[in-house]
Amino acid sequence: MTTLSPALRELGAASLHESGATPLPPRIRPLDPAWRICGRAFTVDLTPGHNIWLHRALYAAQPGDVLVAAADTDIEYGYWGDILAHAAAERGIAGLVIDGSVRDSTDLKSIGFPVFARGLCVRGTGKDATSGGFDVSIQLGSTTVHPGDIIVGDADGVVAIDAGQVKAVVERALQRERSEEQIRTRIASGETTLDIYGLS
Amino acid sequence: MTTLSPALRELGAASLHESGATPLPPRIRPLDPAWRICGRAFTVDLTPGHNIWLHRALYAAQPGDVLVAAADTDIEYGYWGDILAHAAAERGIAGLVIDGSVRDSTDLKSIGFPVFARGLCVRGTGKDATSGGFDVSIQLGSTTVHPGDIIVGDADGVVAIDAGQVKAVVERALQRERSEEQIRTRIASGETTLDIYGLS
Amino acid sequence: MTTLSPALRELGAASLHESGATPLPPRIRPLDPAWRICGRAFTVDLTPGHNIWLHRALYAAQPGDVLVAAADTDIEYGYWGDILAHAAAERGIAGLVIDGSVRDSTDLKSIGFPVFARGLCVRGTGKDATSGGFDVSIQLGSTTVHPGDIIVGDADGVVAIDAGQVKAVVERALQRERSEEQIRTRIASGETTLDIYGLS
Amino acid sequence: MTTLSPALRELGAASLHESGATPLPPRIRPLDPAWRICGRAFTVDLTPGHNIWLHRALYAAQPGDVLVAAADTDIEYGYWGDILAHAAAERGIAGLVIDGSVRDSTDLKSIGFPVFARGLCVRGTGKDATSGGFDVSIQLGSTTVHPGDIIVGDADGVVAIDAGQVKAVVERALQRERSEEQIRTRIASGETTLDIYGLS
Amino acid sequence: MTTLSPALRELGAASLHESGATPLPPRIRPLDPAWRICGRAFTVDLTPGHNIWLHRALYAAQPGDVLVAAADTDIEYGYWGDILAHAAAERGIAGLVIDGSVRDSTDLKSIGFPVFARGLCVRGTGKDATSGGFDVSIQLGSTTVHPGDIIVGDADGVVAIDAGQVKAVVERALQRERSEEQIRTRIASGETTLDIYGLS
Amino acid sequence: MTTLSPALRELGAASLHESGATPLPPRIRPLDPAWRICGRAFTVDLTPGHNIWLHRALYAAQPGDVLVAAADTDIEYGYWGDILAHAAAERGIAGLVIDGSVRDSTDLKSIGFPVFARGLCVRGTGKDATSGGFDVSIQLGSTTVHPGDIIVGDADGVVAIDAGQVKAVVERALQRERSEEQIRTRIASGETTLDIYGLS
Repeated sequence: MTTLSPALRELGAASLHESGATPLPPRIRPLDPAWRICGRAFTVDLTPGHNIWLHRALYAAQPGDVLVAAADTDIEYGYWGDILAHAAAERGIAGLVIDGSVRDSTDLKSIGFPVFARGLCVRGTGKDATSGGFDVSIQLGSTTVHPGDIIVGDADGVVAIDAGQVKAVVERALQRERSEEQIRTRIASGETTLDIYGLS
Repeated sequence: MTTLSPALRELGAASLHESGATPLPPRIRPLDPAWRICGRAFTVDLTPGHNIWLHRALYAAQPGDVLVAAADTDIEYGYWGDILAHAAAERGIAGLVIDGSVRDSTDLKSIGFPVFARGLCVRGTGKDATSGGFDVSIQLGSTTVHPGDIIVGDADGVVAIDAGQVKAVVERALQRERSEEQIRTRIASGETTLDIYGLS
Repeated sequence: MTTLSPALRELGAASLHESGATPLPPRIRPLDPAWRICGRAFTVDLTPGHNIWLHRALYAAQPGDVLVAAADTDIEYGYWGDILAHAAAERGIAGLVIDGSVRDSTDLKSIGFPVFARGLCVRGTGKDATSGGFDVSIQLGSTTVHPGDIIVGDADGVVAIDAGQVKAVVERALQRERSEEQIRTRIASGETTLDIYGLS
Repeated sequence: MTTLSPALRELGAASLHESGATPLPPRIRPLDPAWRICGRAFTVDLTPGHNIWLHRALYAAQPGDVLVAAADTDIEYGYWGDILAHAAAERGIAGLVIDGSVRDSTDLKSIGFPVFARGLCVRGTGKDATSGGFDVSIQLGSTTVHPGDIIVGDADGVVAIDAGQVKAVVERALQRERSEEQIRTRIASGETTLDIYGLS
Repeated sequence: MTTLSPALRELGAASLHESGATPLPPRIRPLDPAWRICGRAFTVDLTPGHNIWLHRALYAAQPGDVLVAAADTDIEYGYWGDILAHAAAERGIAGLVIDGSVRDSTDLKSIGFPVFARGLCVRGTGKDATSGGFDVSIQLGSTTVHPGDIIVGDADGVVAIDAGQVKAVVERALQRERSEEQIRTRIASGETTLDIYGLS
Repeated sequence: MTTLSPALRELGAASLHESGATPLPPRIRPLDPAWRICGRAFTVDLTPGHNIWLHRALYAAQPGDVLVAAADTDIEYGYWGDILAHAAAERGIAGLVIDGSVRDSTDLKSIGFPVFARGLCVRGTGKDATSGGFDVSIQLGSTTVHPGDIIVGDADGVVAIDAGQVKAVVERALQRERSEEQIRTRIASGETTLDIYGLS
């Protein structure tokens, strides 16, 4: 399992974005707002309407990885459900981020397998593999996610961090947290954000 | 009251869809994710911006029926609220599925009257009946719902089943549940979904 | 602090709309469905992608005011977060209504600062002021909000009331509540809504 | 079905108690805080550890009645579950108030059958009837509930109203609501509750 | 990892209890009602006020095991929190059942590590081991849990099953599910539970 | 308004307790688990069954203060509700911590006024002042709260900090957070908590 900076497990997606992380499209949301996700991206390029690459990716990924999946289609399908979540939990996969829909939402919550998705859809998928693959760069909206990027998601949304930038991003985010603590002190002392940020 | 197979009250919308039920558009969601809905469809073709056909349908439908309503418009209205829910509960109506918005959401939850809708909107409706009717085939997105179809909805979405197919769909869904139980056993025993589904 | 009719704090947004209040676009929703908002509108015309006018407005508004903000853009940004909410709570601002996204949703809930927004987005804003201002008429979808309008929001959505109309709107809404109570009595007594509303 | 004043469906349990309704023990709570319950009490005196009187009561009660059940025991049992809720919903029973525990909580929520109980317990009951009965006065903590009392429950708890007092209690509660509206106005105008209530 | 019957992951704690599983005290509840827990019990006998045996048990247990812990004291402590949950998740532990309190509840939910406990308490523990141990029979209320018992928990509570009885209990529970399905059919067809269960 | 270290607004009640803060009884819980409370304690010694001292305290306290109230009785009353919350919000009071019950819980949530209490109870109080007072040391279970103590509450519970110790407690808590971050790193790197804490 890749060892991640544990600070990544505490820092908010919004703070990390302010410190250099790239946002994924805001339409990708946690099914349960209490969920956090954090891990190395194992990318999946879906054949639209088919989920075979998720099955394959699940066994190629390492424990602790987050599956990140994209499909180039506006038609909704439920690409992920109860069976895949059981298999992924058995393999130690940390969660799923998908620019598409999923189903079996009640089971996903009772298993406690974190899924960040575009929505819910009962329509199931086929098992063709006429396009796509895994462990390749993928496109989610205007954002490219590369294999090995570090993924962090919480109630606000999901961000990706280039593996080589993680240390710098985390340091900036921790510095930013300390700075915001000082700003809250100054606000509590009667200063305005106009003065603090020089916006007057 | 039409007697439904009680298995319909336990099977998930996603399972039923895999077994032959037709999905309604995924934009139609339960106001409370804990709600389930199950009953014979009493269809309503709305005059866009007016809810008179819901009032009329409510008294033409049988106890246990689910009102299923469509409106051909992109402008949102709150077609259903507190008064209609009281009247519908009094009549024994099982719930409402509407490809449009509703209002008085807090009242609907405290009454416990299940509504599956596109969203919430405070804008009320008029009472004209320049088009529309009830107990006719209606269109929700790309799906046609016929009077008497069986409707099942849960957190994942809503499906419709042709009345003549219910028995077969339920049997396939129960068979599918048993099969998925065996698949989870095989996963727990170390088999992969690639082997189980022959996807390698 | 402007003294509002306390009935405004009890009446639903849907009831007020039926009595003359103007609905804001239904895409603007409370982050927590339990929240209510009520106060005088202090309007903010945002420079798209920048939040400096929110900082400025916050110090120009009166305690008890609701900030109401519009941005003419389809690109999402998180215009409001933890620091602004701390500063606004310190100033006694009653809440924020924004036709755009916000971030730090978990902090906003733990502070208890009510925000009605289009969604959540981690992408932060700049601090330019190349356009926009505050205390001017603003456009949210097809609705114009004027400085000093009275704003009421709940789980169903948000409405605006012209300051000169508040008394009349509240009186009509209270009258409507009483009338609905009588209608529920008649329904419970076996009358139909068809008879009550003369729809047969 | 007994016709109740619809105001009963809107007034809070706390307001009704202030106006003369008798509180049931606060340990009896709604399984879902969004639920409200309102109806004529059909009382059930349980044989501790057995639920046969609930089965019998269910068929002796009228549609719209609320089952109110007491058991003289500190040992917890799950007296009510999925099957009884299906049967009660089929019969038009308005809900259950029980000074004891229940089970199958997820099913009760998905059915939308309101239950106010002491808690949840998986331990099932037997079917003996060595004591107890129905339609008799019962004791819940220090409160006696008589057959035909009117029951109202919400997130704050449950109250019982003597049938002959309902009209007077509702009138006092409505008067109290109007009075509280005036008090909130005076608070908003700067008066203190010390002055308003003469507590200085 | 011990291979469990996957039916155990679907059957309710109440159904399993009716089929032979022993209930744990109802005061032990899931922190999040959506959580389910299922696994082999790795038992922990705590030194009251100290959590060293949880640290030790965590490394002696197998992946997939559920830690089940008892402490003979009425004083509340938060025996488990963020750090232990991180370590347990890293080890593949399936969850914690404790007849005592825990803390860091927000972290436990965001990690998605299922905890069934008596409550929440900020008071931390020491690290003494003056009594207690692990992998021994323990007492939770009037229930004895043996090492290797199978544990299942859901919103209704937690049950333990003797390892040698699991097969029989599961078979009875599945049979019971089928039987309840038939009972719901008969109820829907107009039969009463009095007739069905022979209670008239 | 007393200026508090803003770190107090971010640190968990459990962390602060580990760093020297005194826990209040765990039976005192937030009505909404998302709420946090933080401020100077303005103490209230209630006459059991009467809430006049809460009315008086509310006008004697400073904006930003947290009312902390104790009553020496096992009988439950709803000491606080909608009217008091409106008045307290108007005065800028930060919240209420009470070793007793409250009512009007739905209103308290929609106002967003944070209340930490023992439970909910519809039974109202009188207005006598035969004992009690405010701004005196009070007893909540085995904990004494002094006027001016700093109060912090979150989902895990409530703690009090002696005003003279706040700086030291916050510093220790921040140091502890940094230390826990390192521990999570070491866990992620494969070390055990047994080695890290020297428990082997």
